[in-house]
Amino acid sequence: MIYMDNAATSWPKPPGVIRAVTNCMEKYGANPGRSGHKMAIEAGQILLYTREMLCELFHLKDPFQIVFTSNATDSLNLAIQGSVSPGDHVIFTSMEHNAVVRPLKEMEKQGLKLTITACAPDGTIDPDDISKAIQPDTRLIVTTHASNVTGTILPIDSIGKIARSHGIPYLVDAAQTAGVLPIDLSKLPVDMMAFPGHKGLLGPQGTGGLYIHPDIQLRSIRQGGTGSQSESLYQPEMLPDKFESGTLNTPGIAGLGAGIKKILGEGQLRMLSHERRLGKLFLEALSHIKGIEVYGPRDIFRQTGIVSVNLGKKDSSEIANLLDERYNIAVRGGLHCAPLAHKTIGSFHQGAVRFSYGAFNQLDEVKSCIKALEELKRL
Amino acid sequence: MIYMDNAATSWPKPPGVIRAVTNCMEKYGANPGRSGHKMAIEAGQILLYTREMLCELFHLKDPFQIVFTSNATDSLNLAIQGSVSPGDHVIFTSMEHNAVVRPLKEMEKQGLKLTITACAPDGTIDPDDISKAIQPDTRLIVTTHASNVTGTILPIDSIGKIARSHGIPYLVDAAQTAGVLPIDLSKLPVDMMAFPGHKGLLGPQGTGGLYIHPDIQLRSIRQGGTGSQSESLYQPEMLPDKFESGTLNTPGIAGLGAGIKKILGEGQLRMLSHERRLGKLFLEALSHIKGIEVYGPRDIFRQTGIVSVNLGKKDSSEIANLLDERYNIAVRGGLHCAPLAHKTIGSFHQGAVRFSYGAFNQLDEVKSCIKALEELKRL
Repeated sequence: MIYMDNAATSWPKPPGVIRAVTNCMEKYGANPGRSGHKMAIEAGQILLYTREMLCELFHLKDPFQIVFTSNATDSLNLAIQGSVSPGDHVIFTSMEHNAVVRPLKEMEKQGLKLTITACAPDGTIDPDDISKAIQPDTRLIVTTHASNVTGTILPIDSIGKIARSHGIPYLVDAAQTAGVLPIDLSKLPVDMMAFPGHKGLLGPQGTGGLYIHPDIQLRSIRQGGTGSQSESLYQPEMLPDKFESGTLNTPGIAGLGAGIKKILGEGQLRMLSHERRLGKLFLEALSHIKGIEVYGPRDIFRQTGIVSVNLGKKDSSEIANLLDERYNIAVRGGLHCAPLAHKTIGSFHQGAVRFSYGAFNQLDEVKSCIKALEELKRL
Repeated sequence: MIYMDNAATSWPKPPGVIRAVTNCMEKYGANPGRSGHKMAIEAGQILLYTREMLCELFHLKDPFQIVFTSNATDSLNLAIQGSVSPGDHVIFTSMEHNAVVRPLKEMEKQGLKLTITACAPDGTIDPDDISKAIQPDTRLIVTTHASNVTGTILPIDSIGKIARSHGIPYLVDAAQTAGVLPIDLSKLPVDMMAFPGHKGLLGPQGTGGLYIHPDIQLRSIRQGGTGSQSESLYQPEMLPDKFESGTLNTPGIAGLGAGIKKILGEGQLRMLSHERRLGKLFLEALSHIKGIEVYGPRDIFRQTGIVSVNLGKKDSSEIANLLDERYNIAVRGGLHCAPLAHKTIGSFHQGAVRFSYGAFNQLDEVKSCIKALEELKRL
């Protein structure tokens, strides 16, 4: 199997990640933060360890600015539902994933006002267009860091500066970039950042998190036992407890810590350079093949490890199936839970065949993908 | 380590559970329900397998009546927030965990009306008291199936019948009973049942679920990508997608399936008999020791695998620490995230020392606990 579906979840997971999950379950699989016995304390320590690894990767000082969630969607729901109310105005882009769009559209039914800023057909955005969309009651700006359809990287620094200059909180969806692109939250004007644990961070599925800037006041969207202030019938206000009700995915979070350790050990920039070599080969080869539409900037420095294509008018899911059946290449066709993005790039009716490579893919695998596309194009 | 903290999370996990988690991550760790390639399909199949195992255990026909969540707290928030609105009236008991109480108290701030039905000091309830609390605008009755503080089993059949006779949805918190007590949802008058995957069901932390009766209409509390109806900016209405946004904890759910397989293979009633033997020994021995307060019904057929005690006026957390340090016995002191329950049994200021045994504890371990308590009592 040539796995080209890393934008959905990264695979394979490093052996250290799997070992960390197993080790947690076997050796100290108690409930963290509840009881005070040795195993529970060790379980609590692994949560702190993973928070500290996240801090190292994202250049943060306080590990309690990171709260664990079950996935990036959960994080985005917390950030959106916890910060805006009916009557407020929210700006987002036409390249957003449904994990951003659907919570906003749900709240629109209760009176939230939305402005969708249109991106160009390659997925890029002019930050001035965000600026122009700002209204007196704008209470949140949400953009992806990079599109899950085209890989297009958005200028979060520029957008964040605009948001800051207006005193509007800025939420970044880092589903495609956390662990992949360097992200320095000590410098970036970002107020909240949602990330999955199981994509670029190389951790297990069932993990994710939300970075919350200390100045941001957020309501909880789930309440329950936190192992803290047990005497109170109300949710504690302190972080991370306020947003971490119920038993966390301790083995998963242990695995996430091991995933980040792998990135820090290998060197994030080295891994990124490798991915860019794959992308360069892929994009250059495709530029010489007629009849293949390639979406996005087609520039490895302006996109993440995604190459989305269409072969003439052929149905993207059909091509994805053929790649799987005939070539053992795992990709994703269709709309990738991002209908607005497909409308933006002009592929709403066809979808697209998305190849998403990661740190563990090899040049030979990319060559096989190119060869397969050449053959399928002639069908 | 004598692990007596199974009410927080069961331990050890069966080897088959750990193998299932590892196998998923190693062999088919793709994103289920998103792409159509072989690995993604295999990942999707394991979700269905675990749903089917849950159906077998709970006597359900339609696997899509079960939705996966990240823990029982998540399930309870979905059931509560998704079904009631400001102005509605909700009845719950004084033995509820904060996973029930805190979401309700949060909604009370927006106008939800609450009635707490008082339980007796042993945690039992007279179903007539629920009946008397019903008002014309009562829209939900919530009770635990068994208390996490005393193990007291509540008469969910009787309470459910009262709820049905008034057309009021009945939500059961099965955090302490799922996997432990036989639960036949084809016969019980229960409309929603929240359960964790990592306690009596023997699965990994980070798993849980909610059973939803087909007649129950529930709003989603999280929206996002579901891999279905990708063209729509709105959350799909079909189950389970409506309530399963974002990437699920696939390895955890694989482990949960293996946990249930273990229960069905061993025989749930055989495991329960073993637990009851442990409880019988524990309760009988304690009944002969003066100066130890034992909470709950003190009847193995009326409580789950929990024996909560206090030694005179000694602080419960202090005793828990001594059990850990001197005897290597893992228990939980304090309030167990259930302050109302401790008020009910009269231990709010002291907390209690909770021994919670499970299917994998042995008689010798219970004997060690009894011996330790005798010694600590004399301190």
